[in-house]
Amino acid sequence: MSAIEGIRACVFDAYGTLFDFGSAVTRCPDVPDDRRAALVTLWRDKQLQYTWLRSLQNLYTDFETVTADALDFALEATGLADPRRRAALLALYRIVSAYPEVKATLGTLKAKGIATAILSNGTPAMLAAAIAHAGLGDVLDHVLSVEAVGVFKTDPRVYQLVPARLGVQRKEVCFVSSNGWDAYGASAFGFRVAWCNRARQPAERLPGAPDAAISDLSALPGLLGLG
Amino acid sequence: MSAIEGIRACVFDAYGTLFDFGSAVTRCPDVPDDRRAALVTLWRDKQLQYTWLRSLQNLYTDFETVTADALDFALEATGLADPRRRAALLALYRIVSAYPEVKATLGTLKAKGIATAILSNGTPAMLAAAIAHAGLGDVLDHVLSVEAVGVFKTDPRVYQLVPARLGVQRKEVCFVSSNGWDAYGASAFGFRVAWCNRARQPAERLPGAPDAAISDLSALPGLLGLG
Repeated sequence: MSAIEGIRACVFDAYGTLFDFGSAVTRCPDVPDDRRAALVTLWRDKQLQYTWLRSLQNLYTDFETVTADALDFALEATGLADPRRRAALLALYRIVSAYPEVKATLGTLKAKGIATAILSNGTPAMLAAAIAHAGLGDVLDHVLSVEAVGVFKTDPRVYQLVPARLGVQRKEVCFVSSNGWDAYGASAFGFRVAWCNRARQPAERLPGAPDAAISDLSALPGLLGLG
Repeated sequence: MSAIEGIRACVFDAYGTLFDFGSAVTRCPDVPDDRRAALVTLWRDKQLQYTWLRSLQNLYTDFETVTADALDFALEATGLADPRRRAALLALYRIVSAYPEVKATLGTLKAKGIATAILSNGTPAMLAAAIAHAGLGDVLDHVLSVEAVGVFKTDPRVYQLVPARLGVQRKEVCFVSSNGWDAYGASAFGFRVAWCNRARQPAERLPGAPDAAISDLSALPGLLGLG
């Protein structure tokens, strides 16, 4: 028995869900082992914080700038500020690794007639680079960036891009995110939601209620009754 | 020489700036020593995250609810979930300790003819309880809560409460916050800003530019040329 039925499109968050943002740090030889975890966490936390604050204040700038701003804060806070290290990390962020099950899962969904899409804070250029590097171009039907609305998740105008561009109803969308705040936000908007809870985080205490939690994307076709 | 001149009102953030939110955990005997720091950090991080996300989605609920929601997440994540511990921590949060220099500093400002105010995410009831517990009622002219606008910092409607209620121009306000994101947000709004950087954090990479950084509030009268 499937938990989520009647789905016409699967829409994926990018960073954390399809792509391992931590891989930029993991693959950078110039970060001391004992500070890798702190740098990954702080860089990501600041990146998200800056997207929310800029959205609240109507002071949008693109995600590439926000990502560099957050990295500058995180490098200074961890005592790692250095122009060459900064440049290396930003270059690696553009080619973050896809999680191992991503390509096969997207291929299965597409073969079963489900439209596949990304909905991301990332800029079109960042997303194009990551998709090309991971070889996902053939298994993605749509790539939607918040650039089109000039505000970041979880502003409802971002989620509204999906019905507007894909021509589907909210309840026909299975939205998939590893980020709890994004999964709950998408649920509150009216999507069906699979929370890909890779980090085994507690439930968020936010509006919304994801329809299912999975530990990686390979469970998704079964969840949608396509197994 | 003073760094910030022409000020008619000093407006303070509450939690982190006047009140030590960590004191709720410090004073709770029922939290193991080795998990206190993690609980303080996670509770605070989630509390702020929830204010930003709810504001972005136009799903406001009061700060008392958000604070309890964040605590529930943080207790579960740190393996400390327990109804009695939860109740004790929330009760202690209502009577968080003021930092030692707060009362004297507010008294000095008021004696010099500067209007004193709080602008906080907190509910009027939470703020009244904390102010009464710290004995600050006599040294505060105004207590402004985001409840009046139904959205959290850093939405500009929150900062706009100050000129609207106090009858002052933005540039006549010295806004004081220990939270970098709040200090930068208030600066971007047009206030003069003293960032009370108690935690010695790096500069935020956000719009705005605080006029001064101080390590505690005792430097404030001198900064305003009232020393």
